[in-house]
This record gives sequence, C-alpha cells and structure tokens, in this order.
Amino acid sequence: MLILKVGGGKSINWDFIAQDLISIQKKEKLIIVHGASVKRDEIANKLGHPTKVITSASGIDSVYTDDVALDIFLMVYSGLVNKKIVALLQKYGLNALGLSGVDGKLWEAKAKKDLLVKEGKKIILIRDNKTGRVEKINTKLINILLKSNYIPVISAPALSYAGEIVNTDNDWAAAVMAGTLKSQFLVYLFEAPGMLEDFSDPGTLIKKISQEKFINYLQYAKSRMKKKLLAVKKALDLGVEKIYFGDGRIKNPVVSALKGNGTTFTR
Amino acid sequence: MLILKVGGGKSINWDFIAQDLISIQKKEKLIIVHGASVKRDEIANKLGHPTKVITSASGIDSVYTDDVALDIFLMVYSGLVNKKIVALLQKYGLNALGLSGVDGKLWEAKAKKDLLVKEGKKIILIRDNKTGRVEKINTKLINILLKSNYIPVISAPALSYAGEIVNTDNDWAAAVMAGTLKSQFLVYLFEAPGMLEDFSDPGTLIKKISQEKFINYLQYAKSRMKKKLLAVKKALDLGVEKIYFGDGRIKNPVVSALKGNGTTFTR
Repeated sequence: MLILKVGGGKSINWDFIAQDLISIQKKEKLIIVHGASVKRDEIANKLGHPTKVITSASGIDSVYTDDVALDIFLMVYSGLVNKKIVALLQKYGLNALGLSGVDGKLWEAKAKKDLLVKEGKKIILIRDNKTGRVEKINTKLINILLKSNYIPVISAPALSYAGEIVNTDNDWAAAVMAGTLKSQFLVYLFEAPGMLEDFSDPGTLIKKISQEKFINYLQYAKSRMKKKLLAVKKALDLGVEKIYFGDGRIKNPVVSALKGNGTTFTR
Repeated sequence: MLILKVGGGKSINWDFIAQDLISIQKKEKLIIVHGASVKRDEIANKLGHPTKVITSASGIDSVYTDDVALDIFLMVYSGLVNKKIVALLQKYGLNALGLSGVDGKLWEAKAKKDLLVKEGKKIILIRDNKTGRVEKINTKLINILLKSNYIPVISAPALSYAGEIVNTDNDWAAAVMAGTLKSQFLVYLFEAPGMLEDFSDPGTLIKKISQEKFINYLQYAKSRMKKKLLAVKKALDLGVEKIYFGDGRIKNPVVSALKGNGTTFTR
C-alpha cells in the first residue's frame, strides 16, 4: 500500500502525478490525500471572507475556522478540488473515488474548540474554532474500496466524535492513515524538492533524516513545514518505516521521491 | 430498495427526513439523491456569477453551465450541501456516505454541448454548455456500498463518456438509477404536497396518475415540474412500478408519500 499526500499548491502537476501512478497502481494499492489551500484562499477572498491564520501558543500556525470558513472549506476541498482531481485521474484510467473525512465516518477527530493563540505579544483564548485532530480511521470502508480496486481520493474535513464537521490537517490525517493501515509507503509531495535547510534555497536539500536527528529539525522548522514534520513524527511513532518528501512539480514525482531524490525519513 | 430524491429547496426539513429513514432503513436498502439549487443560486450571486436559466427550443428550462458555473456547481452540490447532509444523517445514526456522479464513474452521461435555446422570439445555438444526461450507472459500486450497509448520498455532476465533468439533472439520474437497479420504491420530495393542478393552490393535489393519463399532465406542466415528470416518464419506461411525489417539509415525509398522501404514479 502507498499513501500519497499531495499539497494544494498552484504548481503541483497532477498530470505528472497521474502518469506516474499508472504503473505504481499495478504493484501497490493506492490512497491519495490532497490539500487545496491556494484555491481555498482564492475563493475565500472572492467571498469576502479571507483565510485567517492563527498561531497557537506553542507556535503552530493553523487556519481559524468559523462557520463561514468551514463552509468555504467544504466547498473547495470536498467539492471543487476533490472532484476535479477524481475526474483527472479517471481520464488516465485510474479508478478514483473522492471522499471527505465526513463520509462513512472515514476520519474521526478529537475536536479542539478552545485554542490559546498568540496575538502580538498577548496570548488570547479563541473559542468555537471548528477544528480537530484525526485519531480514528474507518479501515473497514477503506479496505472495501481497495479490495474493489478503487483509489480513494480523500481530503478534510473530518467528523468529530460529537458528529460535528471539523477542519483538520491533511498531513496529519495521512500519517494516521499510514500508521493505522500499516501502509508500507507514505509519500508527501509539495512545491519543493524536499525538506530544505534554507527554505529559500533548493540547493540545501536534506536527503536523509533518521528518527534520532529528527527533533533538531522539528525545532527549527517553520510554519507549514513544521506541521509536515509533526505528521512525519506521528507516522514514525505509529510504526511507519519510511516516509518520503518529494517534488510535486516534476515528472515521475512519486517514483522520484521513492528513489530518495527528495528527503527520506527513517526510523 | 428505496431511492429517495430530495429537492434543494430552502424549507426542506432534513431532520424530519432523517427521523423517518431510521425505521425505513431497517426494511429497505436506501439511496439518497439530493439537489442544492437554492444554495447554489445564493453562492453564485455572492461570487458575482448568477445562475442563468435557458429554455430549450422544446420548452425545457435548464441551467446554463459554463466553466465558472460548473465550478460553483461542484462547490455547492458536491461539497457544501452533500457533506452537510451526510453529517446530519450520521448524527441520526444513518451510515451515510456522500458521492458525486464523478466518483468511480458512478453516473455516466451523454454530453450535449450544443443546445438550441429560445431567446425572446429567436432560437439561438449555445455551444460548450457543460451538461449531459445520465445514461449509465455503476451498479457494482452501488451494490458494494449497500452490501456494506452504507447509505450512498449522491448528487450531480456526472462524468461524460469523454471523461468531462458535466452538470446533469438529479431527478432524471434518480429515475435511471431506480430503473437500472430495479428499485421497488422511488420517492421524490420537494416543497409542495405533490403534483398540483394549479401550482399556486395546494388544494388541487392530484392523488393518482396512471401511465395512460400521464401524457396530458406532461403537456401542461411547467418549468421544474416538467423536468420531474420527464424523470417519472423515464422511470416508468424503465419498468419502475410506482413513483411517489411527496412533501419534504412535513414530519414522516417518506412514509407519508409511500402511503399515497402525495401524488402516486403507476404504470
């Protein structure tokens, strides 16, 4: 099994990804998780409700999700982007089927409504932030679909234990899926060659990171990369042997990442 | 099996529908098809691309679907509305799973890009209208889900034979599903007690319509009701024995329709 998380950046090349997956699917069961952040921000602006990023007291950035932001999230992730990816994969003969974490309780999350947030030098309490962290996967549903040769194409939101729709981190959810389903491969593609020492310089690619050295990197990573590394940590903790970061803009992006051309994390 | 199509009107009561389905699902496999027209129009207005209705040369109203309208359609039908319905049903313990017609090629449609349209007294040709009519159902996928006790919650768009996403009529697709899957029950709920002689007077409810009398009604029906009747005709032609129209605003809407409190169509 290969779980592939693809970021929501503008220059991600889904044609290259699909072409790569045609041969991979002959050997491995596939699950795709995707983002849609750039499109989400675009639609949020058009609807006059721009995306608001908040920074937790522990220094993690996330999107503030009120009711309107959650509606926009559903529209762009579960609707527009998910179905366009599914249609594109189908064109390449890949039997894609799109789901959100809400469907069949595929992703169950622990809601975290109250959040301590940095605002300048102050720490304030935000209530009713509709977010959560995925803890539980409906493996039965995934296995039914894989057995019937479907390729699940999944994205946030998730369903909280209380049954509320909550925004959730796709990187994290992909890691929990990989751990729960004992997936052999977990690949993250985004708009960079892999993890960089200096995020503005592609020449500073870090090829390998072992679990012992991991904490160092986690400490210095910023913003989105920090969240990706927290997801990697979760996957490693759940027993995933190897996690690959790779470039989602190049030809054969998945094979290239699996060959170690990006960053490889090992236990 | 019971296929339930629920309209996208504002006063449709999904809590009443869910409460009704709790007992029904113990006896019948369920498939739900839903609309979202009111919400679609609302978001389309907010995005500055209002819904444009066109009337075909044969007098049938439909929504003109250019690329932007299709994006809005995906956002509202496949994203916002589909997932909110799924979450609501899940709250009532109904094992709902949302899909569009695109997913796993669930609904395959014949594209009809070119359309002759009335504009005042003139007839003009519209090209690149991204719509189609559902002809083929992925029964394998539906049966896998039903066998595993999921309730598919489905909405347009569909996938054309050429692999393009196309807007499609949900009433028609529900009829084709009922015929293809040999569903015993096909129920349409909307914001009226059933089919009315005079659509502005609920007292003019028509309780029963047999196939022979059908053509008369079809001739005089207007706008949306005309499309519903074309769907009913398709279902009857495909061998569905009984089709029920009922009120989606009342308690026990499905049971009430099945009791004949709305309009019942028979072969």
